[in-house]
Amino acid sequence: MTKILYAGNPDEWDEYRIQMQTALRNAGLNMLISNQYEDPKNVEYMLYAPNGPVQDLTPFTNLKLVQSLWAGVEVPLANETITQPLARMVDIGMSIGMSDYVMGQVLRHHLRTDKFSHAEIGDWDMSPPPLSIDRTVAFLGLGALGTYCAQKVADYGFRTIGWSRSLKSIDTIASFSGDDGLQTVLEQADIIVLLLPNTPHTTNIINADLIARMKDGVAIINPGRGPLIDDDALLAALDSGKVSGATLDVFRTEPLPVDHRYWTHPNVLVTPHVASSTRIDSASKIVVENIRRGEHGEAFLHLVDRSAGY
Amino acid sequence: MTKILYAGNPDEWDEYRIQMQTALRNAGLNMLISNQYEDPKNVEYMLYAPNGPVQDLTPFTNLKLVQSLWAGVEVPLANETITQPLARMVDIGMSIGMSDYVMGQVLRHHLRTDKFSHAEIGDWDMSPPPLSIDRTVAFLGLGALGTYCAQKVADYGFRTIGWSRSLKSIDTIASFSGDDGLQTVLEQADIIVLLLPNTPHTTNIINADLIARMKDGVAIINPGRGPLIDDDALLAALDSGKVSGATLDVFRTEPLPVDHRYWTHPNVLVTPHVASSTRIDSASKIVVENIRRGEHGEAFLHLVDRSAGY
Ligand SMILES: NC(=O)c1ccc[n+]([C@@H]2O[C@H](COP(=O)([O-])OP(=O)(O)OC[C@H]3O[C@@H](n4cnc5c(N)ncnc54)[C@H](OP(=O)(O)O)[C@@H]3O)[C@@H](O)[C@H]2O)c1
Ligand SMILES: NC(=O)c1ccc[n+]([C@@H]2O[C@H](COP(=O)([O-])OP(=O)(O)OC[C@H]3O[C@@H](n4cnc5c(N)ncnc54)[C@H](OP(=O)(O)O)[C@@H]3O)[C@@H](O)[C@H]2O)c1
Repeated sequence: MTKILYAGNPDEWDEYRIQMQTALRNAGLNMLISNQYEDPKNVEYMLYAPNGPVQDLTPFTNLKLVQSLWAGVEVPLANETITQPLARMVDIGMSIGMSDYVMGQVLRHHLRTDKFSHAEIGDWDMSPPPLSIDRTVAFLGLGALGTYCAQKVADYGFRTIGWSRSLKSIDTIASFSGDDGLQTVLEQADIIVLLLPNTPHTTNIINADLIARMKDGVAIINPGRGPLIDDDALLAALDSGKVSGATLDVFRTEPLPVDHRYWTHPNVLVTPHVASSTRIDSASKIVVENIRRGEHGEAFLHLVDRSAGY
Repeated sequence: MTKILYAGNPDEWDEYRIQMQTALRNAGLNMLISNQYEDPKNVEYMLYAPNGPVQDLTPFTNLKLVQSLWAGVEVPLANETITQPLARMVDIGMSIGMSDYVMGQVLRHHLRTDKFSHAEIGDWDMSPPPLSIDRTVAFLGLGALGTYCAQKVADYGFRTIGWSRSLKSIDTIASFSGDDGLQTVLEQADIIVLLLPNTPHTTNIINADLIARMKDGVAIINPGRGPLIDDDALLAALDSGKVSGATLDVFRTEPLPVDHRYWTHPNVLVTPHVASSTRIDSASKIVVENIRRGEHGEAFLHLVDRSAGY
């Protein structure tokens, strides 16, 4: 009788099985996980992924929790058969991976590494870049990933600011919200990192109007979601030099179509949606913590707010 | 009567003059700095640089201190007319700049950013890199710059180890010395950063023998000194793939000759000796602190040990 159903990517079942059984045992839960089920009514916890085998959840009438294995929730939210509590993935392994990506790309723009990668043979311009302490890095989105990355960037030594729907109180990060807050952030940022979800409020947030309000020569890093950016507006700003460079990991269409100008623009680095991924060992621990909460009647972690869209 | 003589790069005199006068005043020292002198015997403190106007120090018979404005001391040590106490530059601005460079290059190799910069249009390999917590970064040289950079890399989250002549006790860094220690460091390191001075003991330290003892696929970052590396051995190891990539900032001959293979090797990033430079504002404070010590008969900071060669 399957109470915990694995309905994620079949290729990852073997590793999830091992890690989940270990985590369940370590949490003192005498439960099994399976990727098979006989009666859907017995399933109380489902580990779900948009690329898994179960996309119609209607028969699963006794689910306590749909635990997504992905951080982004646009696909499960668009699935109308998911009516039960839905938790998104918040995983320390994923946070570390995202921070590696963000920190590496922030420093790439800061150090103008591209200038040297693309230098003519013999170029010998010895002028050094400004110091990290004299640069401002802004995060649009201070959720699980944005906050983790912003703290790393601030701890390293950059001046770090952030913008989110609700105002935050984080020691090392000046936090802003609302339209006025966004204006302040845009005026100050040398490098902007997008870690917002895609919602009706955030689609095309990086448009011509917003870009015009940024500093000349700003760099943009997008490991959030493709639709956050109005691509034509960004390309125009890259052409004019208003935006000095962009690192883009996510796109409206993935894989990014081969005829897209991003592939060939000299000041764009395309990465193939690798900024970060769920790490099965650490993710299993957080999934099991949510199951433990369900078994003890406690509130689940990381529930998606359907009205907010993330 | 000039007691403090500026004998650095004439182009930087204006800024040094302003910053030094401010720092002298803030230290309560009622002294002037000049770039002119009438009687060399009156000069007690000399701010010296290898690209400055004074290279014969013989007439300056009453010098208490030659304060180099550069971190590297190979040139002043080779100048036989410098017989007085010689201090090298240790400057927090330079340390921050070096750490920016090292951190950025460590993350570039860690994230395999080059793979994406050089990707074919349409390449879409979504496998993520390992996490920073699963990588070991090794510093050869744990002096002023090596220790500062290693601590930043460790605080960020990489496993960090170091090797130096004397064993160090630094909380976050496993420290090694001697031949056995070097062997341990070479076996463990995924990324190696060279912050050694060039001395008879360190010239060509990165040779074929040492490279053979490194991990397959190791990356090497050299912001130290060009002669630390046997260039033919490194190029052979880059060709074979033993060394996966190198970032090189310093060279036997600078500017790097246009026909050098480093310019065109796909896995080498050449930067034109920009890793870091003395920042005049912060450097002036440390120079003034040494002058204050001289005026009070206290021991100078950062004196070069001539017998050790650095
Ligand atoms: N490229 C990759 O490999 C990869 C991997 C993982 C995740 N991601 C993406 O990363 C993004 C962030 O993930 P997360 O886990 O940090 O999400 P999260 O915890 O839900 O955080 C979302 C953040 O966005 C803010 N936000 C949402 N709507 C907003 C609005 N209209 N105005 C201002 N701020 C708004 C939220 O504000 P509040 O704090 O006030 O709620 C919150 O700070 C997701 O979109 C996910 O898809 C990408
Ligand atoms: N590329 C650039 O832009 C740039 C800018 C500034 C400096 N640099 C270079 O960076 C290097 C490091 O500067 P620093 O200020 O950190 O120098 P430092 O404080 O003198 O430190 C030198 C380090 O090397 C170690 N060392 C010396 N000889 C050794 C040997 N035979 N075996 C093992 N370890 C040895 C020393 O060991 P102990 O600690 O035991 O003495 C010390 O840890 C210098 O060579 C400088 O030229 C480059």
